[in-house]
Formats: sequence, C-alpha cells, structure tokens
Amino acid sequence: MAYQYATLKVNGKRLNETLQSTCTSWGALPNSTGMRRLALTQEDKHVRDWIVEECKALGCEVKVDQMGNIFAIRPGTEKGRKPIAMGSHLDTQPAGGRYDGILGVQSALEVLRVLHENNIQTRCPVALIDWTNEEGARYPGAMMGSGVWSRTTSMETCYKTIDAEGVTVEAALEDIGYLGKTPCDYRENGLESYFELHIEQGPKLELAKKSVGVVTAVQGMRWFVVRVAGVEGHAGTAPMDARSDAMVTAARLIAAVKDTATSTGLGVATVGVVTNDTQAQSTIPSGVEFIIDARCSTDQMVDDLCTAMFKTFDDIVKKEDNKTSYHIVRSYGVPEAVFHTDCIESVRASAIAEVGEEKIMEMKSGAGHDAAWASKVGKSSMIFVVSKNGLSHNPNEYTSPEDCELGAQVLLQSVLRYDEGVKSGSILPYKSKI
Amino acid sequence: MAYQYATLKVNGKRLNETLQSTCTSWGALPNSTGMRRLALTQEDKHVRDWIVEECKALGCEVKVDQMGNIFAIRPGTEKGRKPIAMGSHLDTQPAGGRYDGILGVQSALEVLRVLHENNIQTRCPVALIDWTNEEGARYPGAMMGSGVWSRTTSMETCYKTIDAEGVTVEAALEDIGYLGKTPCDYRENGLESYFELHIEQGPKLELAKKSVGVVTAVQGMRWFVVRVAGVEGHAGTAPMDARSDAMVTAARLIAAVKDTATSTGLGVATVGVVTNDTQAQSTIPSGVEFIIDARCSTDQMVDDLCTAMFKTFDDIVKKEDNKTSYHIVRSYGVPEAVFHTDCIESVRASAIAEVGEEKIMEMKSGAGHDAAWASKVGKSSMIFVVSKNGLSHNPNEYTSPEDCELGAQVLLQSVLRYDEGVKSGSILPYKSKI
Repeated sequence: MAYQYATLKVNGKRLNETLQSTCTSWGALPNSTGMRRLALTQEDKHVRDWIVEECKALGCEVKVDQMGNIFAIRPGTEKGRKPIAMGSHLDTQPAGGRYDGILGVQSALEVLRVLHENNIQTRCPVALIDWTNEEGARYPGAMMGSGVWSRTTSMETCYKTIDAEGVTVEAALEDIGYLGKTPCDYRENGLESYFELHIEQGPKLELAKKSVGVVTAVQGMRWFVVRVAGVEGHAGTAPMDARSDAMVTAARLIAAVKDTATSTGLGVATVGVVTNDTQAQSTIPSGVEFIIDARCSTDQMVDDLCTAMFKTFDDIVKKEDNKTSYHIVRSYGVPEAVFHTDCIESVRASAIAEVGEEKIMEMKSGAGHDAAWASKVGKSSMIFVVSKNGLSHNPNEYTSPEDCELGAQVLLQSVLRYDEGVKSGSILPYKSKI
Repeated sequence: MAYQYATLKVNGKRLNETLQSTCTSWGALPNSTGMRRLALTQEDKHVRDWIVEECKALGCEVKVDQMGNIFAIRPGTEKGRKPIAMGSHLDTQPAGGRYDGILGVQSALEVLRVLHENNIQTRCPVALIDWTNEEGARYPGAMMGSGVWSRTTSMETCYKTIDAEGVTVEAALEDIGYLGKTPCDYRENGLESYFELHIEQGPKLELAKKSVGVVTAVQGMRWFVVRVAGVEGHAGTAPMDARSDAMVTAARLIAAVKDTATSTGLGVATVGVVTNDTQAQSTIPSGVEFIIDARCSTDQMVDDLCTAMFKTFDDIVKKEDNKTSYHIVRSYGVPEAVFHTDCIESVRASAIAEVGEEKIMEMKSGAGHDAAWASKVGKSSMIFVVSKNGLSHNPNEYTSPEDCELGAQVLLQSVLRYDEGVKSGSILPYKSKI
C-alpha cells in the first residue's frame, strides 16, 4: 500500500495564531515580542493548563509525571503500542523569544488537531510532550525533565535544586499543580519514538538558503565553573605590582576562552556568567567566578578544546605572576547524541516531499535539546527551521509564519510516515545500545 | 609660654577595648574580625546612637545635620570660636575591617575622654565628627556626607540616590532617625580646622619601617562606568566568527586597564565592579558594564592615565572586529587635595615628639578621605598609622593595638598643639583659596 497521507496539511494560520496569542497571554515581555516564561512560574502554569485542556478536547489522555512533564496521548489502533511522540518545551530564557521550544509544542498540538479533525487512525498512539525546565534558566540544569525521564539525571537532586529565591523544584512543581504521579522513567512510561521540531538557533540554514534541517546528531557540551582567587585590597593604595587581582586574571582567562575556540577551530566556547565576590568600586576583587560553555561536534573534540583552553589558562596565570590562582569544576555535560536512522529517514522523506532535495540540509545541532536525552533510550530525531539572523535566546528571535507552518507540516508527515513504517513492518522495535 | 600638654596621654587600653567591643556588637562578620556595617543600616544606627550618648556624657553638645553627619562639640573657653574637629566614618565596606574609618572616630572619642577627665580647657571648642556614607558601598558616591557639607556635592542628588533595594538616602536617614535639622553646609556649621586619623591602607609605612605618616595631600581620583554593547545569541549555535560578544570585549578592556596603569607608571587603576545584563550560561552576553577607579598623585597624571587607557580601548575594539562597541560615562571624581600647613605642622611636631624624626614619613594618601573635601573649604590634614601587609577593604585588615594608641596620641597632641597655636597667635584664621 502506497503512503496515503501525502496531501494531508497542517493549518498554518491556526498554528501561528495559537502560538502568538498564547505567548501574548502568558509571559510576554513589554514592548517587544520577547518572552520571559521561566519554568514552573505562574506564566508556565497558565500555558500548561491551557494546553492540557486543548489536548483533552481532542480526545487525548493526559498524564503528568513526577517531574511535571506532560504527556498528552491520542490513542492508536493497535493495543499495547507505545506512542510516537512530538514535543519540546514551553519555558523560555529570562529574555528569550517566542519560538525556541514553543514552536515545537504548538506544532505538536497543531498535528493533533489535524489528526483529530480528519479522523486519522494511526497504528501507534501519537503523543504531545511538554518537557519541564528545558532552559535551565530559573533552575540550573538544562533539559531537566527529559534528563530525569531518560534516567541520566537524578530526580532527587533535581527536586532539591533551588532558584534564586531558594524555592526548590519540588515545591515549585507542587505550587503550580504539576507534581504528577506518573513515574518519570522511560522504562515505565516509554515511547515508540520521539520527534522534535525546533528553530535552528544559528545562521546555517539561512546563509545556505535552505528551508529544513534534517538533524542527525546533537553536539557534545560541557560546562565548567572557573573560580579565580586573589587578595582583596584597597584600589587607591595598593601599588600595581603588589596586587593579586582576581578580576584581571579572570579577564585574561575569559579572553583566552574565545581565543582558544577560534584558533583551534574545534567548536564554540562562551562565557555567559561572571560573578565577583566583592563587587565594590574601590576594592581589588578577591574572588571572581565564571562559567564556560563549550560545545563541539564530538565528545573527543570537546575534550581537545578544553585541554587546549586549560593549558592556556596555566600559561596565563604563570605569566601574570600576581599570585592569583584558579580552579575548575565541571558542572554539567551532555555527551554527543546521535539520532536514529528510522526517525532521520522519516524526517528526510517528509522534508523532501515538502520542499525538494535542494532545500534541505543535513546538520548537527549546536544546542542541547530534550531529543538528545530521548535518543539515549530510544529512537529520536529533530527537524530544524530557519532562525532569522541566527538569533535565539533573544527577544528578537524570529521565525516567519511560513517557516513555522513548514516545520509543523514536516513534523506531521514524519509522524505519519514513521507510523506507516511500523504498519508495513519496515520499522522494527528499538534495540537499546546500552 | 611653653607647650604645656606634652605629657598628656590617651588611654590605649580603653581605646582598643572600645573599638573592638563596638565592632563586635554592631556589624561584625561571622568567623572573622571582618565588618559589614553599611551606611544608614541598623548596625550603623546602633553605633551612632551609642557614640552620641557617650559624647553627651562627656558634656558635648551633639548636632546632626541634614545628611546625618554627627558633630559632637566640647566647648572651648573663647566665645565665637569654631571647633577644631577630629573625625572619620563608622560605616564599612560590605566585607571590610575594624580600622578603616572606625579608628579615626573611636580615637576622637578617646581624645574627648582624655580632655574631659583631665579637665583640659581649650581655647577653641573640640569636636568629634562621624561623616555619613564615606565608603560609597551601599550608596554610590563615596565621602557623601563631607561632600555635601563642603558644597561640592548636591544634597538633592544624594537624597535621591538609591541602594540595591531602591531605598533612597533620604528615606534611610529618616528610617534610622538621623535626618537632622542642622544645615549640611560648612558656611553655616563651620570648623576652625579638621584632623583625621586613619590607617594607611597601603604598605608604605610598614615597608619603610616607619610608624606615623604625616599626610600632606590626597591623590586625584576618577571613576568611569564603561558599557560594552554586543548582540545576544545562543552559545551553542552561533559560530565564533559571527559573534558580537560583549563579555569578551569587556575582558580585554579590563586587562588593558591594568596593563596601561602598569606600563605608564602614572598611578593605579582598578576594576572592582562588573555586571552582565544577560547572565545566563548558554547566552552570548549582549551588555557588560564595569567601573574603573583611577588614581594618581596629581590631576594631570589622572588625565594622562585615562587618555592612555581609552586609546588602548579604541585599539582593542577596532582589532576585535566583533561589532561590539563601548561608551564611557565619568561617574565620580575627586580632585587632588592639598592639606594645610598649620595642620600638617601640628601633626608633624606631635608625631616627632612621640616617635622621633626617623619614624615619621611624609606621604600622600592613595585613598580618598573626608579630609580631602574638608581641605577644600578649610584647614585640614591627616595622620596615618600602619596597616599590616597594606591590607584594607578586607576582613583581614589589621592595625596593632600599639599603633592604634600611637595614632590617637598623635591626634590628641595635634589638636592641642593647634589650639596652642591659636592661643599664641602663631596660627591665623583660614583664608579661602577660592
């Protein structure tokens, strides 16, 4: 039997109206299209409540797990099958945009709406997932919900994590009514496969004049906390050559992070957070801490980049000869994730059918995503659409209505093609690599 | 008539006990001899209330002016004379020590106690002054109280200045009961002269094995706020060569502040405060602000240092070629201050009498002090004693009990010698340089 849903279309107008109106209602920054919808806040609660109701109205069963991850499941025809899932996250950075994460969840809702109104019968159930705290902005530890679900992150540790006001994740989940009872564990609440539509968050598609990214992997990522220790002193009286100034040393190291990433060409490295213990105008800083975010295509390249960076650090501290010292703590890491052929090929076929071979680009994701954790315990892959000027984590983040629609359309088709593969027997159950 | 008080001594034990016990009671940091007694907080209120009561018990009239500056005045024998004042400040840095400022006020109290118990009759009144917000730590704008009193700073602007919680100086003064009615104006609440005992806050006396600094001037100082503007972006997806990273540029400029001060040898320059607008681990910083504190012996040298520094900034930003930009706002400045011969010679004679010529050192102050503002509108000078290891603005700041006693003794003698000069006619009234 030939593939029967080739002409089925998402409703782009409805998708874009839904995306914009829910952003305007819950978490919009004033005077811009920027968003501040931090995980587990009231803004997050409101949009969660809304999407749960929408999914129920479409006949979905809604489960909330112990980390607040939402699974809205539309039944399939074959008993005992796990869902083909589509998902992303509804939380944002403190000053983020309307597309990072949000597009993936709203497009999943649009797919459910299309399946519902066309009475499509899939063999596998089809699910929408909203993962908790993907951004790691309010609570450190990005991709927290999917990390626990894939058993790569400890739920107990996450529960105790606090925000700037000292509120724990567990208390925040309870407070907004999303401390669910479904086990947060892929072994007890598993998936057939997982597809995530996301904006690229980089400029590659746009620069190459391509429309759809067929994502085959997520690059490896590591975060390090670097603490430089000096000696506090008076800015007016300590001679320059008698100082042990933690800020000056930290400044040289921060510059070296960029210079090493650039000169080695191994990947990208960023210092996004700097804190100064003393923070007084006439005090020589005694302690400065900063966080390095390093990412490369492979774990080996991340290792090589970090080794080169820390060697440069040693040279700088030795040369500075101002008695400052530093130490490094690895705070977070996500190994490179390789997506599954069954999912990648479903996406590729769907993207080619929509825009043609010449408009697609096979690529790796520079950013971490919930799909990276999902790929550790099952089949998954991602679809990228264009980010204007490559901007993300920025109120000016923008993806055109046409590109949003295109992404949702490829998502719809990828899910249906995958289900077709299950029906035809060309797609076999997942075999764990572990 | 020969000088009659040469053998009069302060009570070093009492001075040191008073200094330590009041620090322990109001503002002590846990597990150290560090202090956190921010201006106009409850800790500041308690120590103010205490010193007001102590001065009243010694027969002083206490006036509080519109900026909360405390003037405790012991009457003299000649009607119409203005006071010979001794003072400093009781507030500290967020993590400061027990001597910076506090020693000067507590020694002034010890002098009043000695005059009182020995029934010394001075021709001029003798006053203790506690100046408000010398540190500029809770409220930006160091030497705020003396700045307004000397009419070099606007009281209206100071009243509106806010702390990190948005509380204004005026509200904080009212809250702790120190929004006084005495005009904060040297023309209406004037002094005959002003002496300030202070710790050196630098290593020069100790390195030269000297005991007392006879301070002849205060070096010029300027503060600049530098803002670097870049473009926010995603740390995982933006290629290194397509970034406009404000943190990297700021890091290079901060290093250049140190390098320019060192290479020109003109003075000292410090970056004590850095803030990052975005402060998120996976976001390329779009805006970073830092504050430069530059000080040299003369105003001309400050100008020359800043010119050299900003030229280097231009070169760096041009070379960086990452589309970041910067702009500089001069936020604060204190011109070099030259002390008055009458006061300097009173200090010199007193210091020589105590420790001998070979143990004194004529020096300029690297730090700003209330005495710098007082010198703009009247006669003033300072006495320095040893800071162990030159440390200050640091919980480990330390001056030995013997050096504290020595400083107070030189202060007592300087005041009495100055008064003697007034009696003998060798010291004439102040003539304004303006």
